[in-house]
Amino acid sequence: MRLSGIGEFGLIKKLRDMCSGGPPGLLAGIGDDAAAVRTGNRNILITSDMMIEGVHFDLSFTTFYQLGYKFLAVNISDIFAMGGRPGYFFASLGIPRSFRAADIEELYTGIKKIADESGVTVAGGDTCASESGLVLSGTLTGEAKKVIKRSGAKEGDGIFVTDTLGDSAMGLHLLKKRRRRIRSFSSPAPRIKLMKRHLMPAPRPAENLSAITSMIDVSDGLLADLSHICDESRVGAVIHRDRIPVSAELAGIAESLNIDPVELALKGGEDYALLFTAPPDIRTGAFRIGGITGKGRFIIDEKGGKAAFKPEGYEHFR
Amino acid sequence: MRLSGIGEFGLIKKLRDMCSGGPPGLLAGIGDDAAAVRTGNRNILITSDMMIEGVHFDLSFTTFYQLGYKFLAVNISDIFAMGGRPGYFFASLGIPRSFRAADIEELYTGIKKIADESGVTVAGGDTCASESGLVLSGTLTGEAKKVIKRSGAKEGDGIFVTDTLGDSAMGLHLLKKRRRRIRSFSSPAPRIKLMKRHLMPAPRPAENLSAITSMIDVSDGLLADLSHICDESRVGAVIHRDRIPVSAELAGIAESLNIDPVELALKGGEDYALLFTAPPDIRTGAFRIGGITGKGRFIIDEKGGKAAFKPEGYEHFR
Repeated sequence: MRLSGIGEFGLIKKLRDMCSGGPPGLLAGIGDDAAAVRTGNRNILITSDMMIEGVHFDLSFTTFYQLGYKFLAVNISDIFAMGGRPGYFFASLGIPRSFRAADIEELYTGIKKIADESGVTVAGGDTCASESGLVLSGTLTGEAKKVIKRSGAKEGDGIFVTDTLGDSAMGLHLLKKRRRRIRSFSSPAPRIKLMKRHLMPAPRPAENLSAITSMIDVSDGLLADLSHICDESRVGAVIHRDRIPVSAELAGIAESLNIDPVELALKGGEDYALLFTAPPDIRTGAFRIGGITGKGRFIIDEKGGKAAFKPEGYEHFR
Repeated sequence: MRLSGIGEFGLIKKLRDMCSGGPPGLLAGIGDDAAAVRTGNRNILITSDMMIEGVHFDLSFTTFYQLGYKFLAVNISDIFAMGGRPGYFFASLGIPRSFRAADIEELYTGIKKIADESGVTVAGGDTCASESGLVLSGTLTGEAKKVIKRSGAKEGDGIFVTDTLGDSAMGLHLLKKRRRRIRSFSSPAPRIKLMKRHLMPAPRPAENLSAITSMIDVSDGLLADLSHICDESRVGAVIHRDRIPVSAELAGIAESLNIDPVELALKGGEDYALLFTAPPDIRTGAFRIGGITGKGRFIIDEKGGKAAFKPEGYEHFR
């Protein structure tokens, strides 16, 4: 069976089956945003992400600075998704021979920028030649008082997201049409804001971590990521279309392009907001979009109609 | 300036300059085999290595099982080089769509094999599509009572290597001529042993760690890696050609091919033996090949002639 048939999630499940049975020090492993290891009296988090030119980024509309920023941002988002604080970052780069040293310095300047903003130390890494495109592989450590997994959602919990969704997918759509790099985001134009959300996502931690029962970052898309929580927690979910938070910028541009902004918010990826479950009356600035049920996965439309949803979103191997 | 001009070591130096000034918890960073972080009362080690198809491996003569084994082996070697015990492994894979799921399972079987042999837990990772070749990026954690860096060598120390050198380079040479995979290493033929050393290196820790002043694993080649120790420790070195350990298998095949085996031992990479410095009278099973001096880097030939050496070895960007 080719990977294009089995899909990324199928492969991860297969690999998890092969790697099960770790020692008791391992609190979370394959299937969460980061692994969590109990070391002494600390919970150490470790996450790895790989970004490949032509798959995850396009240098025709991303500067090296923006790419470096996003490279670390997606790793920080994984640590936040486990309830952690990020610590040390290790960047491994596979670099085509034709690249200029200044390009890689610019990439590091972007990494350093978000590292400084987030209290992350850039601690090491590896460089090697790549025979094809640029390959970035990053590992970020973190620490968490309480490790929040995908598997803790309980019937009766509310479902929350920390930020608007769909902006990144629309930003990508606009960038693909533009096919030029943006050097400055100082313009207040809605298009610029949406493109920035795609190019330089700025993850923020969730509040009130002690009340949160499960969490994931929205990288594959809301429906796909909520499905991961349902899978790992063995629960169902009901969400409401009219509660999905959509930015004014997305709503405006989507109308002008005749695109449904909520479809983008449900299925577009790379928002790097946090999706979590918690008691419905929790004090939080996050948007409550639905609730956890015993089973089934449904979305209620604006007229009250109920339809099952599938984990639709971006699938790497399809 | 293109990367092909600056070279890998030049780039690492530049990046280190950009990333200096970490917090006091960081014991070792860019420029060592692994980063070391003080967490509570523990020294946590973290290393990352990237392997790219067409640069670091060739699937025309490497099985997926052997590749998985080596992928983790090179990371274990980095942890041993810091005086550590390996812990948790995180594998990120960029996989071409045309690959079969069975290939990736075979790769994981190789990872699992050496993980089980070495007490490593395969704890997580990431898979994504690659538009070109297979990309492996691994992160391995470890723990060390005492962190051994490249920078601790002292004038008067002996220079030691833990295993024979040059076998892997000769194995690679033979594999490039053969261009077929080897499914079994049960033959006692010297060629098979050398090819195995290249395909499935089996790193072992050094003994008597408390006496060791600096250490590195021989991945770039002896001269290059000894130069790293001299650079970081700000010392010189003298080594003796006739003390460089060469296996009987390498000596035999090299003679039949009219190749100088010591040249391979000095400049060939990927041996994954350990190169360390320690007081010259240390109790060890390792081979003492020379000594640390105040400055200068020299090699003494079989007739007593002395010549300066340069960090010749495999250079990724040249």
